[in-house]
Amino acid sequence: VGLFDGVHAAGPVAALADDAAWLRAMVDFEHALASACADVGLISADEAEAVRAATVTDVDELGERAAAIGNPAGPLVRALTEQAGDAVHRGATSQDVVDTAMMLVAARSLDALLVELSSVAARVADLAAAHASTVQVGRTLSQYAPPVTFGLVAAGWLTGLDAAADRLAGARSRLAVQFGGAVGTLASLGPDGPAVRAALARRLGLPEPSLPWHTERTRVAELAGALALTAGAVGSVAQEIVRLAGSDIGELHEEGPEGSGGSTAMPHKRNPVAAICASACARRAPGLAATVYASMAHEHQRASGAWHAEWPAVRDLVVATGSAVHWLSVGVGRLVVDAARMRTNLATAGGAVFAERVTVALAAHVGMAEARAAVTECATSDDFASALAEHPVPGRHLDKDAIADLLDPTGYVGNAPEFVRRALIAHRERSSG
Amino acid sequence: VGLFDGVHAAGPVAALADDAAWLRAMVDFEHALASACADVGLISADEAEAVRAATVTDVDELGERAAAIGNPAGPLVRALTEQAGDAVHRGATSQDVVDTAMMLVAARSLDALLVELSSVAARVADLAAAHASTVQVGRTLSQYAPPVTFGLVAAGWLTGLDAAADRLAGARSRLAVQFGGAVGTLASLGPDGPAVRAALARRLGLPEPSLPWHTERTRVAELAGALALTAGAVGSVAQEIVRLAGSDIGELHEEGPEGSGGSTAMPHKRNPVAAICASACARRAPGLAATVYASMAHEHQRASGAWHAEWPAVRDLVVATGSAVHWLSVGVGRLVVDAARMRTNLATAGGAVFAERVTVALAAHVGMAEARAAVTECATSDDFASALAEHPVPGRHLDKDAIADLLDPTGYVGNAPEFVRRALIAHRERSSG
Amino acid sequence: VGLFDGVHAAGPVAALADDAAWLRAMVDFEHALASACADVGLISADEAEAVRAATVTDVDELGERAAAIGNPAGPLVRALTEQAGDAVHRGATSQDVVDTAMMLVAARSLDALLVELSSVAARVADLAAAHASTVQVGRTLSQYAPPVTFGLVAAGWLTGLDAAADRLAGARSRLAVQFGGAVGTLASLGPDGPAVRAALARRLGLPEPSLPWHTERTRVAELAGALALTAGAVGSVAQEIVRLAGSDIGELHEEGPEGSGGSTAMPHKRNPVAAICASACARRAPGLAATVYASMAHEHQRASGAWHAEWPAVRDLVVATGSAVHWLSVGVGRLVVDAARMRTNLATAGGAVFAERVTVALAAHVGMAEARAAVTECATSDDFASALAEHPVPGRHLDKDAIADLLDPTGYVGNAPEFVRRALIAHRERSSG
Amino acid sequence: VGLFDGVHAAGPVAALADDAAWLRAMVDFEHALASACADVGLISADEAEAVRAATVTDVDELGERAAAIGNPAGPLVRALTEQAGDAVHRGATSQDVVDTAMMLVAARSLDALLVELSSVAARVADLAAAHASTVQVGRTLSQYAPPVTFGLVAAGWLTGLDAAADRLAGARSRLAVQFGGAVGTLASLGPDGPAVRAALARRLGLPEPSLPWHTERTRVAELAGALALTAGAVGSVAQEIVRLAGSDIGELHEEGPEGSGGSTAMPHKRNPVAAICASACARRAPGLAATVYASMAHEHQRASGAWHAEWPAVRDLVVATGSAVHWLSVGVGRLVVDAARMRTNLATAGGAVFAERVTVALAAHVGMAEARAAVTECATSDDFASALAEHPVPGRHLDKDAIADLLDPTGYVGNAPEFVRRALIAHRERSSG
Repeated sequence: VGLFDGVHAAGPVAALADDAAWLRAMVDFEHALASACADVGLISADEAEAVRAATVTDVDELGERAAAIGNPAGPLVRALTEQAGDAVHRGATSQDVVDTAMMLVAARSLDALLVELSSVAARVADLAAAHASTVQVGRTLSQYAPPVTFGLVAAGWLTGLDAAADRLAGARSRLAVQFGGAVGTLASLGPDGPAVRAALARRLGLPEPSLPWHTERTRVAELAGALALTAGAVGSVAQEIVRLAGSDIGELHEEGPEGSGGSTAMPHKRNPVAAICASACARRAPGLAATVYASMAHEHQRASGAWHAEWPAVRDLVVATGSAVHWLSVGVGRLVVDAARMRTNLATAGGAVFAERVTVALAAHVGMAEARAAVTECATSDDFASALAEHPVPGRHLDKDAIADLLDPTGYVGNAPEFVRRALIAHRERSSG
Repeated sequence: VGLFDGVHAAGPVAALADDAAWLRAMVDFEHALASACADVGLISADEAEAVRAATVTDVDELGERAAAIGNPAGPLVRALTEQAGDAVHRGATSQDVVDTAMMLVAARSLDALLVELSSVAARVADLAAAHASTVQVGRTLSQYAPPVTFGLVAAGWLTGLDAAADRLAGARSRLAVQFGGAVGTLASLGPDGPAVRAALARRLGLPEPSLPWHTERTRVAELAGALALTAGAVGSVAQEIVRLAGSDIGELHEEGPEGSGGSTAMPHKRNPVAAICASACARRAPGLAATVYASMAHEHQRASGAWHAEWPAVRDLVVATGSAVHWLSVGVGRLVVDAARMRTNLATAGGAVFAERVTVALAAHVGMAEARAAVTECATSDDFASALAEHPVPGRHLDKDAIADLLDPTGYVGNAPEFVRRALIAHRERSSG
Repeated sequence: VGLFDGVHAAGPVAALADDAAWLRAMVDFEHALASACADVGLISADEAEAVRAATVTDVDELGERAAAIGNPAGPLVRALTEQAGDAVHRGATSQDVVDTAMMLVAARSLDALLVELSSVAARVADLAAAHASTVQVGRTLSQYAPPVTFGLVAAGWLTGLDAAADRLAGARSRLAVQFGGAVGTLASLGPDGPAVRAALARRLGLPEPSLPWHTERTRVAELAGALALTAGAVGSVAQEIVRLAGSDIGELHEEGPEGSGGSTAMPHKRNPVAAICASACARRAPGLAATVYASMAHEHQRASGAWHAEWPAVRDLVVATGSAVHWLSVGVGRLVVDAARMRTNLATAGGAVFAERVTVALAAHVGMAEARAAVTECATSDDFASALAEHPVPGRHLDKDAIADLLDPTGYVGNAPEFVRRALIAHRERSSG
Repeated sequence: VGLFDGVHAAGPVAALADDAAWLRAMVDFEHALASACADVGLISADEAEAVRAATVTDVDELGERAAAIGNPAGPLVRALTEQAGDAVHRGATSQDVVDTAMMLVAARSLDALLVELSSVAARVADLAAAHASTVQVGRTLSQYAPPVTFGLVAAGWLTGLDAAADRLAGARSRLAVQFGGAVGTLASLGPDGPAVRAALARRLGLPEPSLPWHTERTRVAELAGALALTAGAVGSVAQEIVRLAGSDIGELHEEGPEGSGGSTAMPHKRNPVAAICASACARRAPGLAATVYASMAHEHQRASGAWHAEWPAVRDLVVATGSAVHWLSVGVGRLVVDAARMRTNLATAGGAVFAERVTVALAAHVGMAEARAAVTECATSDDFASALAEHPVPGRHLDKDAIADLLDPTGYVGNAPEFVRRALIAHRERSSG
């Protein structure tokens, strides 16, 4: 556990994508390769068994020994060979080990991440359903605006989270085994190469691509993009929770356990710590994804740097996104909606947020241009209702009751409940699909 | 045409994604909205006709007037309203105009980009087929390595380009109309809102999302990610062409028209100018995509800056990627493969690139460890064949003919032709699918 | 003026860094080079005069013709040579023209940007001085916290803006002429090369580096970094203005001219449009700077893509940062501070924001641990003062007057005025230094 | 040691910037603060002594406990307080601890990094001096070009590395103590605040800023920018080494110890592993710097996420850049220059790389336009010398000896030696200055 891991490596994904997980996946590759070689008859069942009995678990030592050759697969292979002999690593090259390990780590991490993302989405769907008609003042470009409902806000979160899950699932489905030998021809295995590769893919539970992808990095880029998109969707929700939980707004808060969200200097505070941490984790993603995109050009049959640069970038991107999702899960689980405060804030906003509504109503009598001009004149008043009643244009066409109706806080949420309903249907169809 | 547009905005996409194209798309939105309002009966057919007759084409003027309000939709709506009256922009807000215009621009650009990408892929597939067995020295970590075939290299390009096209097609399919009014409730249209939105989507040929996505930016992020991935795939091929066309390697060159690829100071040069330009365009993408990812958190019902920051980032990302694809199309069209030079380079590489092959052959006699040690001793010699023949271990087990066979330049391309065959099948199934 | 330039290319820098400005700078290079050649006696004064009389002003045409050769300098040189003969471009290569033009554009833009930044800083310094003791509720991690003064906030803005100006001035001072000929040896000028370069530098008003820097891009990276830092400092202030001007807080607003900050749908709004636009421009910078950093590795004697990628990245980064500074200048000029609302918000925050103060005072009697525990118990009460008075621990040691003093909104701004004083001294010493 | 740390965290900086180093710096802050409080008389010398005797060294435990409150300073303060009582952490807030620790870590890391960078520069200066006249074929846009000298290439590396060191030294000089308490007013210390801060700064050996910089992040951005620039300068040299060490060029190689640069599958290879690793580390920097730039907008008196996001980004950026510098140091130390291969490659390039020289010589007789046309015609010939002699224009004005002189490989390096001389003078003045 690193010093910042409490914040930046929270939840179940961290342990599935850390260095120990990469090492396990590298060993898994060698074990599966031996089994595949046995499947095809290149080595005996006993030899394969011996390889599967060999292992390396010391990340520190391997990390240190990786410096000499420039990657951790070389010393791993040496160590396994010392234990199990020449049946190890048949036909493979270092990049096959590391690339396939990256795929395994990504697959295992994404599976866990998708489970957690799904539970966040379920909770957000519940919020959307429960608050489909809970009025909340709208805010555009930082200014009060016509009302929305909190359910509509939550439904927007839901569609973003579901879209992220779909992109992740797509990237997950295209993770594939890498096995090509020194230069991608599997020449040292001769005509058995494709059969070994097929067996290897089957044993690892990963698809077999049409050809080795050692210098063709679109699947790594797709993975990075899906993670950055997910981090963005999660960070967007988290930042909105932080804003709505801010003391000036106070429409949400996180009801955390004793000790969370406090402050050494300010014991009275209730910081939305989970949303803050989710936001923090999410902010790491764009730069890491850019590193992966900028490292896609792998030269010739193995890249001199672009390949190596992917390792920490992908590892950190998986961990950061997993942590962001986890923190959002915690935060949404703690979320308390203060509908009364929402109504209070809407009242504070004043009638002017209904200017659009009044304008449309008045336009039916005098046309849009005159209506807009008249309403604009009234909108800067502290008492919008009276200003309207006393203004010659609206005053002539709208009586006090009509004005009161038009300024009713709950009467102007438009199609918010309908949109929520549609979003929930889409969510449910997706979940069951 | 800007000063750098000859390089950075080449090909058909540039004109589909430039500022004039955005303005046309904004006008298209207003026209389609008027038609949709007429479809639903909110305005008359004559009013809709009047709106469709109104237009604005002066990018400069609109650009200047955008400063006052902070976006170009406001002055557009004013100008159209002056021409066609209140039937313009019913129920809509500025963000609806700009966001839907972004979707239209992206849709039109991606359609063109996919056509060009498909023709590049077809040409690359032809190269892969033609050179499935054309031997080329492998190069890993900058050093000579066992041979590959140029067809295998080209097949790798092909799978990357096809994967990029698939991601773009996915992003294309999720571009959707944005129409939510001031805060996403379509309140000013009352219960007619959804019907107007449905008609609008139909008329624009864009899907209708379950709810307005003004602050839910996953589809913008997916678009950006697919473009960055495509730029990466294209840039990767382009950089490889530049390397293989470099004077030191000389295995490829671009046979361009008179005047291309020359130099003011060095008339003898044949610069691979198309590949260079493709690479240049592609390098812009990671940073632009990062800008989009980092701008996903849109606050409340309209973002104060994150929204505005997307416009040039998305525009430039579409143009840069389109230009990269176009330059690659030009470059691949000009590509001349020098198979003789490939063989020469392979011969220059010397027998040591077959060390792996000899090691495997020798290991059948003495085991892998002893074989590797013996071959390593011979591999630094200038004359690998003689060194092997004279070394006590390989010299005992391998005769001169066997050594000559093992060092035959064309005899060790392994499964390269088979992998090419599979890649071409996958490509053809994809094309016809 | 592009469609988004009203927002993204505002102020005086835009015209100093647009494509026309780059073309002017390229022509300036050729003019100065001819003069330098005449200074050294390589060409006659008449020939130099003829070159200086030649020009190209059509960006469009040059942009189009740049495609064939891959840069705009080639066609420029051809056009000037047609006008003025062989005296043009002596000893130079395309990269000399474009790189030096980049330096000239940057120098001219930074000079203007620094003037505008200085005037923003002066206005912010005035705000800091005027509001050194204007109390404002503190907000940490979104929650109310002990009070600050708005002057302290403004003083923080000031130090950031001054630091940005210092970094820009540093980068400005290291912009240098690039002149090396085909490969950086100035071989075609023979031993006259250094003298011509010295004269060229003198005539352009740029420093002469010790050797050509065509593939050594640290000065481009320093420029990009200084711009990104400036955009960040400006964006940070702008985002804080947007937040403090938000309806929920309302402590600041922009008093803009008629028509600014309005909304098509919501006429009552007073959007802080200048701060919003500043924030939008600033958000483009990190990704663009990353593009420049990622393009620093220029291969051999001229890069095949990394060089070309710099052009739009640097252009856009200069324009975006210049626009951000300009918008902040506009926004700060319009800024109205609502000290009454600041006091109201502080009162709303309640006594609990003084928990720290009470804890320290109480700790003098009972130690920190017991004091903290007692105050924490009181801090969740709606009426903190009464809770303290009634609690056995503080109630015993603090009487009502002492409690009232401790909860006085204006009495706990600590060293804010002193820090403001120091920041203003530092600012004035810097300005006069 | 992490799995990838052999590559990505090499050299002395890694241990100065890892999590343990951050924790030590956090403890150093608390120790120095206690001493400073004693200096000013706020606590007794005994209390200060007790605080300095307290410590926490378990990164794992602290990392885990950081999750509850969202930063590692909270649990550290609690642990120290348990050991040493209320004299701990007087006047401070969590952010003071973490921010000042970041400064200390950066200061210590940069000091070490600058030492190593200086030794790399010294070795590169030796290379430049030794090879000031060692001819090497130029390569522009991947094509052979007029010759340079390897000393000129190395001198270009030198100026980049020195520029990077200057930027780092500048950023180092502006690292400053952060101490502001809950909201930056040091209110809980009353009027003693500034005196405590001054003593704290003195004891930590860091400058005291004019005011707390908790939400003013230009010095963090300057640090990030200087590191990214350094990584770029280092990566540029490293990539050039990789290219020149590639089998196709072979002008450089790394003479590493037994076992470095080898390959599991290809024992004959001599991979330039140090340069490859330097390049890999450097590639991480642009994205990490972008993360820091994009996190500069810290809201109100403490940011909800942007602050937290800096921690891993700055840590990783320091480690990656330190590792890149270290690997370059290793690589340059191993570098062997093959001057004979450089001459061979120049000969292979053929006379056409002297086309510029011949053109200039011929232009003295027939003008530039006619000279260029004639030379262009000859330049595509395999035997440039004969083509020139047989062409009517050069054949008339240049005899065989003149042509031979013009095509002498060593006779056209122009001002390369002079430029090297100047670069070395600038380097020496800088080192002694």
